[in-house]
Amino acid sequence: MKHILLLGAGRSASSLIKYLFDHAVAENWQITIGDMVVDHLQPLVASLPFARAIPFDVHNAAQRAEEVKQADLVISLLPAIFHIEVARECLLQEKHLITASYVTPAFLALHEEAQQKNLTILMECGLDPGIDHMSAMAVISRIKQEGGTLTSFKSYTGGLVAPAYDTNPWRYKFTWNPRNVVLAGQGTAKYIKDGVYKYIPYHQLFRHTEKLYVEGYGTFEGYANRDSLSYREPYGLQEIPTMLRGTLRRQGYCQAWDVFVQLGLTDDSYTLENSETMTYRSFVEAFLPAATSPEQSLETRLGLYLGLPPEGEVMQQLAWLDLFTDTPVELAGATPAQVLEKILKEKWTLAPGDKDMIVMQHLFAYQKGGEAHQVSATLVATGDDEVHTAMAKTVGLPVAILAKRLLQGKILRCGVVIPIYPELYEPVLEELKQYGIDFVEQEAPGA
Amino acid sequence: MKHILLLGAGRSASSLIKYLFDHAVAENWQITIGDMVVDHLQPLVASLPFARAIPFDVHNAAQRAEEVKQADLVISLLPAIFHIEVARECLLQEKHLITASYVTPAFLALHEEAQQKNLTILMECGLDPGIDHMSAMAVISRIKQEGGTLTSFKSYTGGLVAPAYDTNPWRYKFTWNPRNVVLAGQGTAKYIKDGVYKYIPYHQLFRHTEKLYVEGYGTFEGYANRDSLSYREPYGLQEIPTMLRGTLRRQGYCQAWDVFVQLGLTDDSYTLENSETMTYRSFVEAFLPAATSPEQSLETRLGLYLGLPPEGEVMQQLAWLDLFTDTPVELAGATPAQVLEKILKEKWTLAPGDKDMIVMQHLFAYQKGGEAHQVSATLVATGDDEVHTAMAKTVGLPVAILAKRLLQGKILRCGVVIPIYPELYEPVLEELKQYGIDFVEQEAPGA
Repeated sequence: MKHILLLGAGRSASSLIKYLFDHAVAENWQITIGDMVVDHLQPLVASLPFARAIPFDVHNAAQRAEEVKQADLVISLLPAIFHIEVARECLLQEKHLITASYVTPAFLALHEEAQQKNLTILMECGLDPGIDHMSAMAVISRIKQEGGTLTSFKSYTGGLVAPAYDTNPWRYKFTWNPRNVVLAGQGTAKYIKDGVYKYIPYHQLFRHTEKLYVEGYGTFEGYANRDSLSYREPYGLQEIPTMLRGTLRRQGYCQAWDVFVQLGLTDDSYTLENSETMTYRSFVEAFLPAATSPEQSLETRLGLYLGLPPEGEVMQQLAWLDLFTDTPVELAGATPAQVLEKILKEKWTLAPGDKDMIVMQHLFAYQKGGEAHQVSATLVATGDDEVHTAMAKTVGLPVAILAKRLLQGKILRCGVVIPIYPELYEPVLEELKQYGIDFVEQEAPGA
Repeated sequence: MKHILLLGAGRSASSLIKYLFDHAVAENWQITIGDMVVDHLQPLVASLPFARAIPFDVHNAAQRAEEVKQADLVISLLPAIFHIEVARECLLQEKHLITASYVTPAFLALHEEAQQKNLTILMECGLDPGIDHMSAMAVISRIKQEGGTLTSFKSYTGGLVAPAYDTNPWRYKFTWNPRNVVLAGQGTAKYIKDGVYKYIPYHQLFRHTEKLYVEGYGTFEGYANRDSLSYREPYGLQEIPTMLRGTLRRQGYCQAWDVFVQLGLTDDSYTLENSETMTYRSFVEAFLPAATSPEQSLETRLGLYLGLPPEGEVMQQLAWLDLFTDTPVELAGATPAQVLEKILKEKWTLAPGDKDMIVMQHLFAYQKGGEAHQVSATLVATGDDEVHTAMAKTVGLPVAILAKRLLQGKILRCGVVIPIYPELYEPVLEELKQYGIDFVEQEAPGA
């Protein structure tokens, strides 16, 4: 009998929970699920002898200690800032831990103690970070084994809406935290191209997109993430001349989103003077130069200001959001980003029955035997329904599979570990295929 | 006998020190000047029976207490972050204080105690803030007394180079802290225009300039400061429909500076990967999209990227900075802003004999007797020499004059006070005329 403590039972935990329940009898697991609110889980666990759901407050040290004590493995899908407290408790009580979040300096500081205690703290085990590492490393290590030398690696991931439900002119709906979508890309994107470090400030980011093509799904566009460089070392690509990690959207999204950036609507650093009395229209007006003639409409001035054709696609995307209407904002003391998030939520929320879609594409270039080669590896994963979304499956299933293998004693690496090693990622990628999470590789003509 | 303790004896203190020395005998002052290094002052004070200069460390609590104890009035020209420690000591020992810096929340918290102890903490008494308040309030209060209602107030100030020494294509040299010039405008500019709050994000700031004209000096341009709104209340202009405070440059500066902003060269939030091996040219390259053809030069790509005509004025301004040469940067672990500052210092440092110039222009519009009126008030102040610069005079003399009046018992307001009251600013503006610091008013045709 092994005891799993899962902390965090939000929407993204659905597929992870289902996997744990489905395997509990065969694996002889006892499962405790803790979150602030677990009412929605009670009917489900009531009939399962191996599961219980408990109200759990991560700030309650006594409860934290007590629950971790009873576990053999802790899985945390809590908001990332809470992981470190859980990790310290796990170290203290000598329990393994898995999360889907980024390794932070605070976690790195725990590496040595975890190693000494023969404990595994598996991080970055979800989708991005997670499946991106696993699938990229599978191709990279194969290319290397075959005697190839990587010259370029680009990797883009996007959480989108499945084609049948892709019904608005932005070709986007919120399938993940809306606030993170509004703030995405702030800071400076850093990457390397042909051996030259490149920097893209935020206000240029959505103008520097790369076009991507996915067989059967059409054209996408990608913009660079903040840091494309820090994985060169873990991936064993210290000398690679070109490396870029980015975010993927449907074609046309970035050009329209750039309007928000150019106007300043994504700024979260100050509050507007009068957001409570604003309308969508006066919100836009606040970021435009004043009219030089009373005949100039807001739309005309916006078009002139940012060089947008009056009847063009971008103006239609903006108009579709009701941005030029007198809809009241009804938010007091809001930042521009908070107002924008509210406007977008009105239009970009998934409708009942809508399914989401994850698209990940890696593009590799390498030299082998004096010749240039290119290969792409592409994943398209679609949600089953509103509960088992593509996001929930791709985040939760790799975590769940790694949890199973850890409890089976098949993961021997200790310390703070990310899934870049074949013995970690190979079985996960293999098992994910059963759930329709599978990469398609395609050779392209040499560059 | 009154004892003045002046803290901070940097370049901007020269005219203040001269004023204090010139008036010491008549006013019966004893003057102590403290700074980290005062060697340059020793020959000067050696012959003056009423003055001494001492090495002073603001972090040395014992010395701070001892020196403040002996003073009747403390003047602080230290970097702004050090004022608050000095202010707390002054309160403790019941001494008056004058600074040229902005009132911060930490200072506001001292207001009540200062009032209870009948102490005056006079702040914002230099140029900007300082002379700007005084000269604006003189006009505003006259307009109000004459029954006018202000409808618009704009105020621009710039530290520039005097016409005879205005010899480079930027028409700018550093006459003040270069780092502050490089970082100027970061954040979001906020102002009000025709009753509508307006916000300009940093990446649009240098594209939103207003043209200004100064009789005998030609055309200038102004861009908005971060906060134009907080002085509405102290100025008694709570209901004014249009108010903007800004920074003034020679025409053509902002368009060229915008290139730095668009590229991201003014970013101080991260360090470059390899600044120690960079040249000016590779520094620019790092912020440009990669060449699509090897024939495209850096200059061509920059021009295409930002829409700059190849032979235009802006490209010439950039080339004049040697920005396209292989000059080594020679800075390790530098931010983009630090590299840019180094490049600019090579070219924008005042040459021996160069004189600086302060330009301040207020533009008022008001309604009186059913008619619209406009009036401008303009100051042009030129440096006497490299010691008594326009900057040193305009920052130091109003502080000095207010110090004199405070010690003469002519300033009765207590607490944290800024010079917006007639009994404070009228004598200062009057006496400043003797030093060539004088505003010219001009009526313009009604709007």
